[in-house]
Amino acid sequence: MKRLLLINGPNLNRLGLREPHIYGSVTLTELENDVIQFAKEQSAELNCTQSNYEGAIIDAIHGADGVYEGIIINPGAFTHYSYAIRDAIAGVNLPVIEIHISNIHTREEFRHTSVLAPVTIGQIVGFGLFGYKLAILALLDKLGGNKE
Amino acid sequence: MKRLLLINGPNLNRLGLREPHIYGSVTLTELENDVIQFAKEQSAELNCTQSNYEGAIIDAIHGADGVYEGIIINPGAFTHYSYAIRDAIAGVNLPVIEIHISNIHTREEFRHTSVLAPVTIGQIVGFGLFGYKLAILALLDKLGGNKE
Amino acid sequence: MKRLLLINGPNLNRLGLREPHIYGSVTLTELENDVIQFAKEQSAELNCTQSNYEGAIIDAIHGADGVYEGIIINPGAFTHYSYAIRDAIAGVNLPVIEIHISNIHTREEFRHTSVLAPVTIGQIVGFGLFGYKLAILALLDKLGGNKE
Amino acid sequence: MKRLLLINGPNLNRLGLREPHIYGSVTLTELENDVIQFAKEQSAELNCTQSNYEGAIIDAIHGADGVYEGIIINPGAFTHYSYAIRDAIAGVNLPVIEIHISNIHTREEFRHTSVLAPVTIGQIVGFGLFGYKLAILALLDKLGGNKE
Amino acid sequence: MKRLLLINGPNLNRLGLREPHIYGSVTLTELENDVIQFAKEQSAELNCTQSNYEGAIIDAIHGADGVYEGIIINPGAFTHYSYAIRDAIAGVNLPVIEIHISNIHTREEFRHTSVLAPVTIGQIVGFGLFGYKLAILALLDKLGGNKE
Amino acid sequence: MKRLLLINGPNLNRLGLREPHIYGSVTLTELENDVIQFAKEQSAELNCTQSNYEGAIIDAIHGADGVYEGIIINPGAFTHYSYAIRDAIAGVNLPVIEIHISNIHTREEFRHTSVLAPVTIGQIVGFGLFGYKLAILALLDKLGGNKE
Amino acid sequence: MKRLLLINGPNLNRLGLREPHIYGSVTLTELENDVIQFAKEQSAELNCTQSNYEGAIIDAIHGADGVYEGIIINPGAFTHYSYAIRDAIAGVNLPVIEIHISNIHTREEFRHTSVLAPVTIGQIVGFGLFGYKLAILALLDKLGGNKE
Amino acid sequence: MKRLLLINGPNLNRLGLREPHIYGSVTLTELENDVIQFAKEQSAELNCTQSNYEGAIIDAIHGADGVYEGIIINPGAFTHYSYAIRDAIAGVNLPVIEIHISNIHTREEFRHTSVLAPVTIGQIVGFGLFGYKLAILALLDKLGGNKE
Amino acid sequence: MKRLLLINGPNLNRLGLREPHIYGSVTLTELENDVIQFAKEQSAELNCTQSNYEGAIIDAIHGADGVYEGIIINPGAFTHYSYAIRDAIAGVNLPVIEIHISNIHTREEFRHTSVLAPVTIGQIVGFGLFGYKLAILALLDKLGGNKE
Amino acid sequence: MKRLLLINGPNLNRLGLREPHIYGSVTLTELENDVIQFAKEQSAELNCTQSNYEGAIIDAIHGADGVYEGIIINPGAFTHYSYAIRDAIAGVNLPVIEIHISNIHTREEFRHTSVLAPVTIGQIVGFGLFGYKLAILALLDKLGGNKE
Amino acid sequence: MKRLLLINGPNLNRLGLREPHIYGSVTLTELENDVIQFAKEQSAELNCTQSNYEGAIIDAIHGADGVYEGIIINPGAFTHYSYAIRDAIAGVNLPVIEIHISNIHTREEFRHTSVLAPVTIGQIVGFGLFGYKLAILALLDKLGGNKE
Amino acid sequence: MKRLLLINGPNLNRLGLREPHIYGSVTLTELENDVIQFAKEQSAELNCTQSNYEGAIIDAIHGADGVYEGIIINPGAFTHYSYAIRDAIAGVNLPVIEIHISNIHTREEFRHTSVLAPVTIGQIVGFGLFGYKLAILALLDKLGGNKE
Repeated sequence: MKRLLLINGPNLNRLGLREPHIYGSVTLTELENDVIQFAKEQSAELNCTQSNYEGAIIDAIHGADGVYEGIIINPGAFTHYSYAIRDAIAGVNLPVIEIHISNIHTREEFRHTSVLAPVTIGQIVGFGLFGYKLAILALLDKLGGNKE
Repeated sequence: MKRLLLINGPNLNRLGLREPHIYGSVTLTELENDVIQFAKEQSAELNCTQSNYEGAIIDAIHGADGVYEGIIINPGAFTHYSYAIRDAIAGVNLPVIEIHISNIHTREEFRHTSVLAPVTIGQIVGFGLFGYKLAILALLDKLGGNKE
Repeated sequence: MKRLLLINGPNLNRLGLREPHIYGSVTLTELENDVIQFAKEQSAELNCTQSNYEGAIIDAIHGADGVYEGIIINPGAFTHYSYAIRDAIAGVNLPVIEIHISNIHTREEFRHTSVLAPVTIGQIVGFGLFGYKLAILALLDKLGGNKE
Repeated sequence: MKRLLLINGPNLNRLGLREPHIYGSVTLTELENDVIQFAKEQSAELNCTQSNYEGAIIDAIHGADGVYEGIIINPGAFTHYSYAIRDAIAGVNLPVIEIHISNIHTREEFRHTSVLAPVTIGQIVGFGLFGYKLAILALLDKLGGNKE
Repeated sequence: MKRLLLINGPNLNRLGLREPHIYGSVTLTELENDVIQFAKEQSAELNCTQSNYEGAIIDAIHGADGVYEGIIINPGAFTHYSYAIRDAIAGVNLPVIEIHISNIHTREEFRHTSVLAPVTIGQIVGFGLFGYKLAILALLDKLGGNKE
Repeated sequence: MKRLLLINGPNLNRLGLREPHIYGSVTLTELENDVIQFAKEQSAELNCTQSNYEGAIIDAIHGADGVYEGIIINPGAFTHYSYAIRDAIAGVNLPVIEIHISNIHTREEFRHTSVLAPVTIGQIVGFGLFGYKLAILALLDKLGGNKE
Repeated sequence: MKRLLLINGPNLNRLGLREPHIYGSVTLTELENDVIQFAKEQSAELNCTQSNYEGAIIDAIHGADGVYEGIIINPGAFTHYSYAIRDAIAGVNLPVIEIHISNIHTREEFRHTSVLAPVTIGQIVGFGLFGYKLAILALLDKLGGNKE
Repeated sequence: MKRLLLINGPNLNRLGLREPHIYGSVTLTELENDVIQFAKEQSAELNCTQSNYEGAIIDAIHGADGVYEGIIINPGAFTHYSYAIRDAIAGVNLPVIEIHISNIHTREEFRHTSVLAPVTIGQIVGFGLFGYKLAILALLDKLGGNKE
Repeated sequence: MKRLLLINGPNLNRLGLREPHIYGSVTLTELENDVIQFAKEQSAELNCTQSNYEGAIIDAIHGADGVYEGIIINPGAFTHYSYAIRDAIAGVNLPVIEIHISNIHTREEFRHTSVLAPVTIGQIVGFGLFGYKLAILALLDKLGGNKE
Repeated sequence: MKRLLLINGPNLNRLGLREPHIYGSVTLTELENDVIQFAKEQSAELNCTQSNYEGAIIDAIHGADGVYEGIIINPGAFTHYSYAIRDAIAGVNLPVIEIHISNIHTREEFRHTSVLAPVTIGQIVGFGLFGYKLAILALLDKLGGNKE
Repeated sequence: MKRLLLINGPNLNRLGLREPHIYGSVTLTELENDVIQFAKEQSAELNCTQSNYEGAIIDAIHGADGVYEGIIINPGAFTHYSYAIRDAIAGVNLPVIEIHISNIHTREEFRHTSVLAPVTIGQIVGFGLFGYKLAILALLDKLGGNKE
Repeated sequence: MKRLLLINGPNLNRLGLREPHIYGSVTLTELENDVIQFAKEQSAELNCTQSNYEGAIIDAIHGADGVYEGIIINPGAFTHYSYAIRDAIAGVNLPVIEIHISNIHTREEFRHTSVLAPVTIGQIVGFGLFGYKLAILALLDKLGGNKE
């Protein structure tokens, strides 16, 4: 059974409360339970963590090495400037997928650039919370463990 | 049953022949058959087209209006400069998903920008041919027709 | 009697169908009939063509040499990047007028620049379909054939 | 009967004297008489003013509110940097048309950008003095008062 | 008793008439009376002037030297390009405060830069007409004459 | 009685110790006591917090939702790159005022840009510690609770 | 015997007709006959094609794979923006030489950049029609088939 | 005898009062008397004018046509953005020399660019008030009337 | 005896584990022991700390004031964007040396710029772990405590 | 018989020694002998010179005036910044051809721009040492002295 | 008696031979004799040197220290990129005047920027060879040795 | 015994004479003697050279190949634009260390970029003349010949 880690970045603890016209009304806990269940249906185990601290996210990525087989990360606004998280990703031997709930290309200019994308294996952008499930499928496919 | 259109852009007819270290060895016909079959399993009908002509792709997008319920497009290099295709997408009342086989953010600088992304609903980048299947799932989810 | 050519570029076949809050509800055929009639009232003959293919527009410009005395072109999104159409215009001995239905300067950034403008004799921007009639007047004035 | 205001900006008092290879030999007074007459033929009344002072042009725009139904402005070099005139235009409830005698896109780089264009309803560029008549037609069309 | 000068720049004579969704419905005269009264309550004397002419504002700044002890200026659109006003401010020995009614950082790009800010002692941005009163308090504090 | 939160960002714990020629010799505790007292005189209650951690500031903003009626923030150097704090501000339903002690426009280039300004209601810049009091007045005015 | 393909891009069908002060008076057919003859003298076979359609040029490059041993291309204005042709060149296992008749570095700014150059083996610029013969020699030299 | 016009731009009326560490303590009147006397010694007549109004400077340039044989202008801060003054200079048939008292290249970045320089015959920069005399010599030399 | 502080920034806890082709196989603990010993040989005392949290690094810099006589910092990726750390350095009265293990100028573009360099006394770049010893020598030399 | 000059710029004396994977193993002397012989076969006389000094190359260009009928130059890295060599080329009445051994467009960004190209008649790029022979043919063709 | 040094940079040995429509037909020797004579009339001694070598110009500047009281330099194309000459000028305790024969602001873009201007005391641009005499007058004035 | 070469670039012959507030009062000869002695103590032989000629520095680098085992270079202002020196360094099989006496990051903008850094093994910046000794240690460490 594949073990996967889901990291949600800054402000995602506010999911369901913050700007619902963009992010919808599902809370982070509900989302996490939903995708844990979905992973289980794909015969995978998913653990979830969230932090508003860049340092905590770096620690989480380091800690995943040797424990998990892949990481899904929604880096929130860190996407656009955290070269430290980029270095953390580049420094572990794990496939990492970047996900964004909204279509960042239709929003402010600064959201169009990701400093993390070059060290991830792929990005899923704009499909709402369903994107998390797509990310699980994509990661399992990459790991050779998807059920197709 | 949902009807979907898959448009592959310039040079994708060379799939399997062109730069296999980037794009793999599956041919376009094999890919199309594979995703048509996958769509069918999701109770959807997928039609496929490919062209190296910008004008033909615009025509295909126009022609989809009223016939299909959504479009998946791999615009190839048109991604980076075809404002005419952008206008075509913006001018039809259909959800459009943009897909790229490779992680364009690890390649040349000019591949980091998509002029189409702002008029699509989302992007799937870097998951190889499996990305086409993710795009089908995402589009069906958006259309309310996925099987989950 | 002056002979003029009107070229409409990509997506203008969708006039009346596409983004009516920007472009109105008149179709391309209705527009063409209207301006042909208007030209006739100015004692001029106007022929009309439309294509989504950059190559076809270049061919049309080439073909106009020696047949028409002037060209009116709405290049659509080709305005912003088709240096090939620019070369075609520069290579025929005909006055060319560039027209845009909407005020492109109030829309997206990329629509603010025209690579064609330096080789045309003038631009008419932002007056809706009435701009086509202004273009006919302007072209006839340039050719010395207007009735004023 | 529609009442319109024509504002000519800096250096246009030198029309006919200044760089005749670009602007021709008609003087400002002759131009004004000609377009006043043309407006009359369109059943409109046109008043004319000119100033080299940015402040005077702002005053004229303010003063037009409630007196005229539309403004035609050739802002001269103010086109390229007067955000104050831009604010004045944005602050009155009148349609404003921007006109340039020469094709500014074939001249120096700094003439390619208009800071006023985003707050006008359209631009007429490159048709010599005849452009003023086109502007009158365009403005009347917008106001629903043209005779066609 | 401290003597202060308030200078309002271009288009501010239109206060209450122009774009009320941004600037509110209070007129310039009402504003001036209100802040003069407020200054009086702070034991200060405030004089007010407004002009749409860059030159007149420069003259006013020059004239303040030796007459007033500080200046509050809302430079309107001159904020963004008038290096001449900047030089005038730098050339008098008076503290100058820059004020903007609206939050210029949420509006057009060109409004994000102030060429005057480097020669003023501070900026107050985005608090509507109340900002003028804050400016008076700030200026008096700087002059050591506030009542706290 | 209005409840307000004051957040001081990185390095402001060093107030009075750090670069006194720029920031003066008052310590953070003295400042906080002073503005708490000032708020009380305006019939408002002010709570204060400070952190060098971006994550802690995000947490503080989240925690203010439903507890306070407005926030005053001196973001220190986070002003110039923390899109994560920007998202936090945008995600709570509270008016936020940005304050800087020194005139950031007369210092290094990188201090001229604020990524937070677009999501705040206003900025107060350059008035030393007195600016905190101006911010309280401005916030109370916005909340309709000022005593004028 | 080496088999080579010569591709002429948009507007080159107008050779001899278009801007003769830049391109001379030889027609495309005359040029093609001349270089075919020259190739024959070098014991090589040269085939020629021309199109104004980007898609047709891509098709021609694809079709050359396995049929020809090298390509000479004058991409006309596509030089400056066709990333699709670039991908086509990169996707075939053939040496490609880029040629320009005029010295593009003494013309407009936009002609100074080639998006194709990085995927070709070399460029020959500015030697008029004689450049085509140099390109044949260069290609044969690369293929080891020149007669020196 | 040659007749020359000296135009001093915004803030130069403050000469001797403003920033003496940069501009010295000679007043404008003293400067004007000094250079008028110097011109007389060169058998030339010099008239002087100064204004803080861009429009007035344009008027002065226009008025010089046919009256003076050359213009010396210190445009002050208008140097950096007044395209309207540039057009005025370009529109009169008079040689114009641009002068700056201080070495503008050692001051702020924005002072390094002159939008007027391309339409003047030369610039004299950095020699203090003596530069005005150099400008007279240079202008007379250009007019063929210097005494050497 | 001089007391020095060594601060290692984000991801350096992964030394020896992360990208060994760039950073080698020595672990952070081994490195720290090695340089502590080296410092001792130079009659200096070196303390070491590491954190992935920007806030913790700021705290460490603050805490060094009055305790240590100098700081050596390898800021990791914070080098390129942490203006908060820059402010912390500028706010303590201690010499700070910036060190990088690899030659950052041969790596990605974003690694070529250091926002910290202007507030440090010098940089040592590209000499592997030996660079830490050079930094100790340089710092002692600056403090007048080196043994040469 | 035509007399031609070949100038090789900085570091080309290292040909055959330096980076052989880019430049091959032929030495400069061997190259010079080879192309002198080739020129002789074309009935032309070729002289050769090389220098690492910008000044010496300028002298060589000056000295060629009236002695040679054309120049072939491989400017090495001077290509990218020596405006002084550019002026030297522009100042002699001789056709100059620029040659580069490697395809500079596939190397570092700074090698993509030539400041010399606008004053040469053409460029030959990327054909290894054979490019020198192509340059001789091109120069003779331009001089009307080639044997075809 | 004041001793001055005149340094002419690259390609100025070609004066009278090179591009006479820009630089006139006077040779360098004639120019030097003329200005030496002019300096003598001003009771000054002028020595002249010219080189196409950047290093030789640096040597000449160094050698002037303690020997001459000021330098006039026409740096030719070195103006635009020689930071080494800039350092040489900054490193001697002599006033340096920069002179250009033509109006560099009406020529190519790259000629608009001088990297030397910030370390000179002034520039004289566009007055032909007469500018050298103006420079002598300006330098003597600065040295307090002019005869006026 | 290791043989090393020290190259000092333009203006460093003026050490001790030039801008002593930046570079100190030690002369070049004194510096060279000091570091030769220091090298000897490390059992290495150091030779020294200096030139103001770019070409001479290139020659020195070429000449070092096969004679020395490493190079230390202070390139002076050539640091910022000499791509020719860069090519020379890249073309020899020797480790090269770049050194700067002052902290170039606290000086003018143009000094922040080194075009040489990417082809050196490391940089030592800002430690005054002591930096030369650090460079010797670093080079010996790299060569495996340091005495630690």
